[in-house]
Amino acid sequence: MSITAAQLAEFQVFAEQLADTAAATILPYFRQPLTVTNKSDHHFDPVTQADKAAERAMRELIRQHYPHHGILGEEEAAYHGESEVTWVLDPIDGTRAFMTGLPLWGTLIALNDGEKPILGLMDQPYTRERYVGTQAYSTGNGLRLKTRACNSLATARLMCTTPDMFDAKRRQAFDDVAASAQLVRFGGDCYAYCMLASGFVDVIIEADLKPYDVQALIPIIEGAGGIITSWDGNTAQHGGTVLACGDPELHAHILEKLRHAA
Amino acid sequence: MSITAAQLAEFQVFAEQLADTAAATILPYFRQPLTVTNKSDHHFDPVTQADKAAERAMRELIRQHYPHHGILGEEEAAYHGESEVTWVLDPIDGTRAFMTGLPLWGTLIALNDGEKPILGLMDQPYTRERYVGTQAYSTGNGLRLKTRACNSLATARLMCTTPDMFDAKRRQAFDDVAASAQLVRFGGDCYAYCMLASGFVDVIIEADLKPYDVQALIPIIEGAGGIITSWDGNTAQHGGTVLACGDPELHAHILEKLRHAA
Repeated sequence: MSITAAQLAEFQVFAEQLADTAAATILPYFRQPLTVTNKSDHHFDPVTQADKAAERAMRELIRQHYPHHGILGEEEAAYHGESEVTWVLDPIDGTRAFMTGLPLWGTLIALNDGEKPILGLMDQPYTRERYVGTQAYSTGNGLRLKTRACNSLATARLMCTTPDMFDAKRRQAFDDVAASAQLVRFGGDCYAYCMLASGFVDVIIEADLKPYDVQALIPIIEGAGGIITSWDGNTAQHGGTVLACGDPELHAHILEKLRHAA
Repeated sequence: MSITAAQLAEFQVFAEQLADTAAATILPYFRQPLTVTNKSDHHFDPVTQADKAAERAMRELIRQHYPHHGILGEEEAAYHGESEVTWVLDPIDGTRAFMTGLPLWGTLIALNDGEKPILGLMDQPYTRERYVGTQAYSTGNGLRLKTRACNSLATARLMCTTPDMFDAKRRQAFDDVAASAQLVRFGGDCYAYCMLASGFVDVIIEADLKPYDVQALIPIIEGAGGIITSWDGNTAQHGGTVLACGDPELHAHILEKLRHAA
């Protein structure tokens, strides 16, 4: 669906309202004793009452303002609206960071026009940081974002939430790239992508992501001059494997090393 | 050396002055382009102008106020004072976090009475968080700290800065413990220890630490009711391997699993 610049500006204001609502809902739970539920029978996939309450509050606001829009969120069933426009929500990306008291979690809000995410927002209310991107232009805490030039792994700062997110074949591919990087740092979730858009991180390599883990981050990175795709070079919006680089030349170089494990 | 309660109170006020000085020196460099130097011929051991300037400023303040005290810092040669009392300084613990824009680095300041660290301070000036401990009493951001009861690995939140800090034997020992933990989170540096003291993290397992990486954290954890030792159950103050737990019962349990790799 074609969205005008005026509509996009309106949706951006609304996305900030959603983020304010999520922040007000989540912050009272941060660094408090939590009821943590395991969503999975197979492994530990935690969800807290803060995740659920924040998604519920955002969904209600969307239904009030844009009842025809679709909603895809982490915690409730997808709602297929009459419009092709869909809000893609992750109330707390980085639930493990949230549980351990680390301020690296964030609320992710994307607007997908039916083809791709055209608006993305990451909000970290404890540190009062907000990152917003519209593919062509990204801001972080009110300043324009620009990725860093870095066309060589030897000078690259690489991040990844955890090496445990890869299966054996992908782990080998990750390790091969990581061995050539100047610096490897684990633990980041959505926050790492905003640091890449800000020019402090050069590469993020991840796998096993869900659409709502990544859609909000795509316009932020693209608007800052970076590039983000799956390991086979296609759109990252469906989740799965992700390679994000601040410098497109480095992206092309690393993609060749990861493609066989995509 | 025996230090009175009145002296300890005086030194605590002074430690806060040191932290203020370090913060004022470091913050202008955070999230700015940095000159990063590699201190090692063997691997990447980064130091920035912010590390050096902050240690210089703290050393100068100590020389003015307590010229007889010793100084052990990360960036300059140790100064052996006439007194047994030594200030142990790490201007930026978590230089990699600092370089990648993550607010998980901290300034570490310990006072060692010649036998052990009796006062510890961790300051994170970007998020305006400060943790102070005196073995018997710890505070974080003005509130009293208390570790969480958690006597089983099955419900434990485990942190570690990076799995790359272990040699092969220790890595195996770490992996064996991590496999039984409810949650494992990498990337934390000194910040993780303060989250343990605050009751949000249950276990930290690390290796290859230096004395200035850990001394400030010992009184903070002990003052909150936790326990921190090396993997063979001795004092952690000399660095090397470290096991910190919020619950002493869990510490005893994990120590038995790590001791063979100490």
